[in-house]
Amino acid sequence: MTQQRIAIIGAGPSGIAQLRAFESAKEKGAQIPEIVCFEKQDDWGGQWNYSWRTGTDKYGEPVHSSMYRNLWSNGPKEVLEFADYTFDEHFGKPISSYPPREVLWDYIDGRVKQSDVKKLVRFATVVRWVEYSEDTGMFSVTVEDLRTGETETSEFTHVIVGSGHFSFPNYPEFDGIETFPGVVNHAHDFRGAESFANQDVLMIGASYSAEDIGSQAYKMGARSVTMSYRSAPMGYDWPEGIEEQPAIRTIDGNTVHFTNGVSKDFHAIILCTGYLHHYPFLPSELALHSSNNIYPEHLYQGVVSEVNNKLFWLGAQDQWLTFNMFDAQAWFVRDVILGRIELPSAEEQREHMATWRKRFDAMETADDQIDFQTDYVRDLISQTDYPMFDLYEVADILKGWVQDKKRDIMGYRNATYRSVMTGTMAAKHHTEWINELDSSLERYLNIPESDEVRDIWEGREAVQRR
Amino acid sequence: MTQQRIAIIGAGPSGIAQLRAFESAKEKGAQIPEIVCFEKQDDWGGQWNYSWRTGTDKYGEPVHSSMYRNLWSNGPKEVLEFADYTFDEHFGKPISSYPPREVLWDYIDGRVKQSDVKKLVRFATVVRWVEYSEDTGMFSVTVEDLRTGETETSEFTHVIVGSGHFSFPNYPEFDGIETFPGVVNHAHDFRGAESFANQDVLMIGASYSAEDIGSQAYKMGARSVTMSYRSAPMGYDWPEGIEEQPAIRTIDGNTVHFTNGVSKDFHAIILCTGYLHHYPFLPSELALHSSNNIYPEHLYQGVVSEVNNKLFWLGAQDQWLTFNMFDAQAWFVRDVILGRIELPSAEEQREHMATWRKRFDAMETADDQIDFQTDYVRDLISQTDYPMFDLYEVADILKGWVQDKKRDIMGYRNATYRSVMTGTMAAKHHTEWINELDSSLERYLNIPESDEVRDIWEGREAVQRR
Repeated sequence: MTQQRIAIIGAGPSGIAQLRAFESAKEKGAQIPEIVCFEKQDDWGGQWNYSWRTGTDKYGEPVHSSMYRNLWSNGPKEVLEFADYTFDEHFGKPISSYPPREVLWDYIDGRVKQSDVKKLVRFATVVRWVEYSEDTGMFSVTVEDLRTGETETSEFTHVIVGSGHFSFPNYPEFDGIETFPGVVNHAHDFRGAESFANQDVLMIGASYSAEDIGSQAYKMGARSVTMSYRSAPMGYDWPEGIEEQPAIRTIDGNTVHFTNGVSKDFHAIILCTGYLHHYPFLPSELALHSSNNIYPEHLYQGVVSEVNNKLFWLGAQDQWLTFNMFDAQAWFVRDVILGRIELPSAEEQREHMATWRKRFDAMETADDQIDFQTDYVRDLISQTDYPMFDLYEVADILKGWVQDKKRDIMGYRNATYRSVMTGTMAAKHHTEWINELDSSLERYLNIPESDEVRDIWEGREAVQRR
Repeated sequence: MTQQRIAIIGAGPSGIAQLRAFESAKEKGAQIPEIVCFEKQDDWGGQWNYSWRTGTDKYGEPVHSSMYRNLWSNGPKEVLEFADYTFDEHFGKPISSYPPREVLWDYIDGRVKQSDVKKLVRFATVVRWVEYSEDTGMFSVTVEDLRTGETETSEFTHVIVGSGHFSFPNYPEFDGIETFPGVVNHAHDFRGAESFANQDVLMIGASYSAEDIGSQAYKMGARSVTMSYRSAPMGYDWPEGIEEQPAIRTIDGNTVHFTNGVSKDFHAIILCTGYLHHYPFLPSELALHSSNNIYPEHLYQGVVSEVNNKLFWLGAQDQWLTFNMFDAQAWFVRDVILGRIELPSAEEQREHMATWRKRFDAMETADDQIDFQTDYVRDLISQTDYPMFDLYEVADILKGWVQDKKRDIMGYRNATYRSVMTGTMAAKHHTEWINELDSSLERYLNIPESDEVRDIWEGREAVQRR
């Protein structure tokens, strides 16, 4: 048998989960194959490795992270907690349910920074091209060391794609947008809303990006926030100053005309129009061709490429669950590679996918999606030694979160949830999200010396005084 | 002998020049090889094919063009005129020496749109990976049709790289820049200065991008424009409201501290820090490793790769000359491929490069660079049937341009020059650049019905009234 050699593409939460999965097996005495993880950034964390740059990075490669300075988790941390490394273990005290970006990065990093896995990652190394040879049964992986410009090709028995699908913008055309004289960005390149103070800003889209960037703009003192939906409004109980409008008919200079006849002038437009599955390093016969949804086609158990059972995807789904779903997937992939899980015939794989696909097609509500994904993860975990946790409870938290947002879209981050892993109740945070302008780890973890709230409303009041 | 098959990468001014070069030979009765030009955008023109998008394009590929809505040529058109297709021939009347973007795109397009060469271009097709086989002596070129996602590999005898080197930002780090709450962009992603009205903006850099984007910001009513230089200031006689400062020591929130002790608050920062030679589709042994300069190393006659004489670069130089230099290069490359020009031995190529390199190293002034590049182009043209033109006169125009800018950096575009090709004197334009807010082709080519100048100073006056 060929000596196994595993390439992991990307050291974000998925790639790290894969490294951790193999390490966990090794700690329990298993022989594990040689692993190389290629990460184009200088550090791991993927989306959580924030970049102030937009467009391309210092090496000329597309910037990976879509996060902004003041991003806070928009889902409760209790649904993403690692089963083998809890928030309690990392922080040593209860924290709130919706931590900011830096805090979550610290948590991801904390699980693995003491381990040996970082040395398996080749940082600043981008995967340029992957080919599979039917003759040798091996993958040729060509990479470039971005620090030296050197390219090299080596052979692997398995390839695990963990490069994500929230990095390449879906960037549609809008009639007349080239005449708009203000700032136009895709959400991927949004880094902060401070410059929107006293401005009228338009979010194109009706999903998480529009909701959260629009809320950021409101928080930072935008004069007005408009969100344009294609099929249906989000319908939250928005505060005064935020409104939803239907699709755009045309844009003429500063003026945007919506399909309902309403027209409005804007200073800035953010396209919250989602992301593409885009794998520039893969030939079309290996690439995943899918829209962003919770059950992409052609992936057995959501991870094994149907066209090549030695090629895997982590986190290719749209995500109600994140870190712990990536863990469940990584443990499953590990066990397939280690021969602990035997893959059924192609025909049986297709039948298995068809069954799930049928349920996918029948989904109607958010709750249906939540049940689907928690069932999927439970099914995966049941096949490995990843610590099982109460995914029904997780589903309940997610359903509660959906209701929290309906009740109070600007205040849902004040809610607290109980850890499914430890039973610890989240702490009420010292400052409400709407009043907190400092999203740093330091500020988050420490009780502020003064409870003075910075007057973030200065901008809005200035407008109201007009 | 193997049937020749030529891949041209990119259909910008360089790629188009190469297509035109072969077509010209064909028109004169020559047999020409099979040619395929791969262009990742939907149309040709390269930099001149403007995109309102920033970051990545609609296919998820890095946006190629670095141009902005209101860009006008910053050098006289008389130095870039095609020798085989003049401005007179295209426009049918004299136009000014500094046309805006749309007008120059129209001119480039005009030369070739009636010809058969467009059918040789595979648009929306990106080159993913190129390999050279010593065994077969052929290049394997793997491309992706971005509209379908299909990848394919085919063989070529020669590869001509015309993908340019003003598309991938040089994006250095600045201490504290991640704390800056305003807009931060590289010049590559700058699309217009209208949103800078009444703002204090900082350009980092002291070359063409800083000069022109800074001037745009001034024109559009920025309250102040500051340019930060590393080695030396540009030293133009800037109007009130524009100033130069030395390098940045640190950035703390809105405040930028310069190395001379000066501190200032800004609303926006544009990194005018140049571009990288970046060829993500080439293995390191074939790629060009160079800074942006007028005599990149390892290119015999500035175009033939020293490491593989069947691999060519067009426009790899920093550019005093553009379109007609690309023509001169394309004609030369064509004649090498057609066997009309025989390449000397590797040793002789090295000696030839060393001679030019010695002169390159001895250059001190802008005039030295101008003489260098005009001599280089004259030398190339003398080896082909491309129409020779008076490059001494072109050098004089360039030297005059440098002086024009020293005299009046906001007014140098009012100067007019005489065509080296036709002797036609450029027309004085109906509106001075500083007063013209409409950069469209239509406005440019027609005498405005009213000579009313839009009051672009509203913003600045508002500031002065404070």
